[in-house]
Amino acid sequence: MQFSLLHTDQETGARAGVVTTDHGTLQTPIFMPVGTLGTVKGVHQRELKEQVKAQIILGNTYHLYLRPGTEVLEAAGGLHRFMQWDGPILTDSGGYQVFSLAHRRKITEEGATFASHIDGSRHLFSPESSLGIQRSIGADIVMAFDECPPYPSTRQYTEDSMHLTHRWLERCVRFMQDSQPKYGHSQALFPIVQGGSFDDLRKQSCEFIASQDQPGNAIGGLSVGEPIPDMYRITQLCCDILPKQKPRYLMGVGTPANILECIARGVDMFDCVLPSRNARHGMLYTRDGIINIKNAKWKNDHSAIDARPDAAPTSQVHSKAYLCHLIRCGELLAGQLATLHNLAFYLSLVREARTRILDGSFLSWKNELVPQLERRL
Amino acid sequence: MQFSLLHTDQETGARAGVVTTDHGTLQTPIFMPVGTLGTVKGVHQRELKEQVKAQIILGNTYHLYLRPGTEVLEAAGGLHRFMQWDGPILTDSGGYQVFSLAHRRKITEEGATFASHIDGSRHLFSPESSLGIQRSIGADIVMAFDECPPYPSTRQYTEDSMHLTHRWLERCVRFMQDSQPKYGHSQALFPIVQGGSFDDLRKQSCEFIASQDQPGNAIGGLSVGEPIPDMYRITQLCCDILPKQKPRYLMGVGTPANILECIARGVDMFDCVLPSRNARHGMLYTRDGIINIKNAKWKNDHSAIDARPDAAPTSQVHSKAYLCHLIRCGELLAGQLATLHNLAFYLSLVREARTRILDGSFLSWKNELVPQLERRL
Repeated sequence: MQFSLLHTDQETGARAGVVTTDHGTLQTPIFMPVGTLGTVKGVHQRELKEQVKAQIILGNTYHLYLRPGTEVLEAAGGLHRFMQWDGPILTDSGGYQVFSLAHRRKITEEGATFASHIDGSRHLFSPESSLGIQRSIGADIVMAFDECPPYPSTRQYTEDSMHLTHRWLERCVRFMQDSQPKYGHSQALFPIVQGGSFDDLRKQSCEFIASQDQPGNAIGGLSVGEPIPDMYRITQLCCDILPKQKPRYLMGVGTPANILECIARGVDMFDCVLPSRNARHGMLYTRDGIINIKNAKWKNDHSAIDARPDAAPTSQVHSKAYLCHLIRCGELLAGQLATLHNLAFYLSLVREARTRILDGSFLSWKNELVPQLERRL
Repeated sequence: MQFSLLHTDQETGARAGVVTTDHGTLQTPIFMPVGTLGTVKGVHQRELKEQVKAQIILGNTYHLYLRPGTEVLEAAGGLHRFMQWDGPILTDSGGYQVFSLAHRRKITEEGATFASHIDGSRHLFSPESSLGIQRSIGADIVMAFDECPPYPSTRQYTEDSMHLTHRWLERCVRFMQDSQPKYGHSQALFPIVQGGSFDDLRKQSCEFIASQDQPGNAIGGLSVGEPIPDMYRITQLCCDILPKQKPRYLMGVGTPANILECIARGVDMFDCVLPSRNARHGMLYTRDGIINIKNAKWKNDHSAIDARPDAAPTSQVHSKAYLCHLIRCGELLAGQLATLHNLAFYLSLVREARTRILDGSFLSWKNELVPQLERRL
C-alpha cells in the first residue's frame, strides 16, 4: 500500500491524497461504506461501484468469522471473490464487536474470549487470531486488534486498556511480519490510537502508534458517546502527532457535518453505519438538511428525492412521494433507494471536499455547508 | 390495445402473438411479475427492464387504493409516473384481495364492503368503484370486478357467484364506455371467466364473457387449491371456447411447469407471486429443478447460482455459497438476488416457449423440460 499526499490545505489541516492498493486506488479524503457480512445492506456490488461510486468498502471480521466462516471464505479465494467486489476492502479487527455485541466477554493478556451473539458458542480473539482471520478474509487494509473502552471509562481503566492495546499491537506487527497474504495481493496493517478523552493518554498513544511505522494509522475510541467537541479536540490532537506521510483513518465517524469537520482536522479515511442504517429507517441526508421520508409532509411531494446531478441516479428518477409510500408500506425497495441515496451523498460530499481542498476553497465551503447539513427539513 | 396472433402450434394449443399497448408491446406467451404496491419487491425498475426483461408488470388495485391512495396516484399522473415504469401495466380489480385479505367482507348486488387489513377502515368496492380506481391508477389493461369463490365451494354457491360476476361485468363494460382514461393512454378491459371446477358452469361463463367482446379475456378462480389436473382441464375447456383472436390471461398461475402446460392449452398471459415470494424464502427455480438455497449443501458450493447466458446477470456473477450465506444471515441482498434470479428465469422460460412455438419444437421441448423443472436439487 502506498500513500501520496498531494496537497494540504493552507487554512485547515485538510489533505488530498491517493492511497494505492493492489485492488485499486482511493482518492482521499474518502468515506468507506460498511459491508458487515460481505454485503452493503440492500445494495448490489455493481450499484456500489456505478451509483454510489464507492472506492473501498469495509467488512467486519467478527461477523465474517462467525458467518460464513474462514473455511468458506478461503474456499472462495477470499472475500473479494466471495462477494464479487474487485475494489479495495478494509476489515476491522473484530475487537469492537466483541466488546459491543458478543456475550460473556473476558479480556486477558492473551486476548478476548466471548460467546457468539448468534448461537452462544465460545471463541477467542487475540492479536494473532484476529489477523489470521483477516488473512483469510484477504482485505487490502487490516486493522490491529485493540480494546475500545466504553464511554465513559475511568482514567485508570483507559490507561491500562491503552497499554494492553499497545502490547497487542506489537504482537500484531510481529504476526504480520511472520505470516503471508493468502491470495497474492498485499495487506497493510493500520494500528489504532486509543486513550479515551484524556489528552495526555491520546498523545502517548499517538506517539507509540507512530513509532510502529506501519503503512497507515487509525484513531479509534471516538464516536462512542462522548460530546462532539471532545471528538473534534481529540481528532485534532491525534492528527497533529500522527505522521503526515501516512493516511489517517477515523473509525466509526460520523454525520456529514462530523466528516467535514474531521477532514478539516486532517483525517483522510472514514467509515460509519449511519448513512446505511439510518436510510433503512427513512432518514435521508441531503445538501439542504435531513429528511425523515416517513413524515406525512412528503406523501404528496412529487419532486425528485434529490435532483442534483451528483445524487444517486435513483434519487434523481424517483420522487419523495414514492419513497414515502414505499417506506410506509415496509417495502424492500425503500431501504434500497434510501441506502443508495445516503451512500451516494456521502461519497459526493467527500469528493467535493477533495476538489475544494485542491482548489483552496475548502474552509469557506465547509463553513457554509455544515449548518445546512444539520437542518431538519 | 391490439392483439396479433402470429402462430398457433400444430401439435398443441400453444400460441405466439403480440399485444400492443400505448406503453409498448408484449411478446406472448408472457409472464407478468407482480408489483403489488407499485414495486416488484426488492427489484429496481431498471433491473426489471434490463435484467428480468419484464415486458409488463401487475399492480394490485386493493393495495394501491389503500396505500398510497388515488389522490397521490392522480397527483403523480398515474402509477406509471409514480413508480417510474414506462412499460405496460395490468391491474387486477381488487376483488381477489377483498375476498382473501380484507376483514368483515359482505357481498351484495351492489358490490363488496370490507374492512381494510391495515387499519380496519370500511370501504365499498363495486364494479364502478373498482374501475374508477383503475382509471386513477392508469393501467394499460384493467380487470373486471368479479367474485372469486373459495375452493371448494358448492355448485349452488359457484353458480350464483358466477351470475353475480356476469351482472357485475355488464356494469364494468358500461362504466368503461361512460368514462374516459385520465392520462391520455387507452385502457383495455379484460372480463374474467369464473365457474369453479364445474365444466358446464365454466362453459356457460366462457360463452357469456366472449359475448361481451372485450379486447382480451381472463380465466379466474383457478390455482386456488384445486387439484392440478382440474386446473389443466378447466384451462383447456376455457381456451377451447374463448375467441382465438383475443389474448387469454390465466390469473395467478403458477409454477414453471404449470405455465408450460397452460401455454400448451392456449394461454397467452400469466401472473403469479410464486417466483418473487418464494425467492424471498430461498427457493430458486432453474432449468435443472428447484434449489432451496438455505440448505447446508450449498454453503461451500462456489459455482454460479446459474451460469446460463439467459439467467439474471447477478445469477451468473454470484455463487450459490454467497447467496446461501446472505439468506442465512437475513441480508436484504438475498431477497434481491433470489428475486432477480426467479423472475429472469420465468421470463426466459416464456421467451424460449415462444421461440419453440414459432419454430415448431414446442411440444417435445415442453415434455422434456417439465419433469426437470419439478425436481428438487
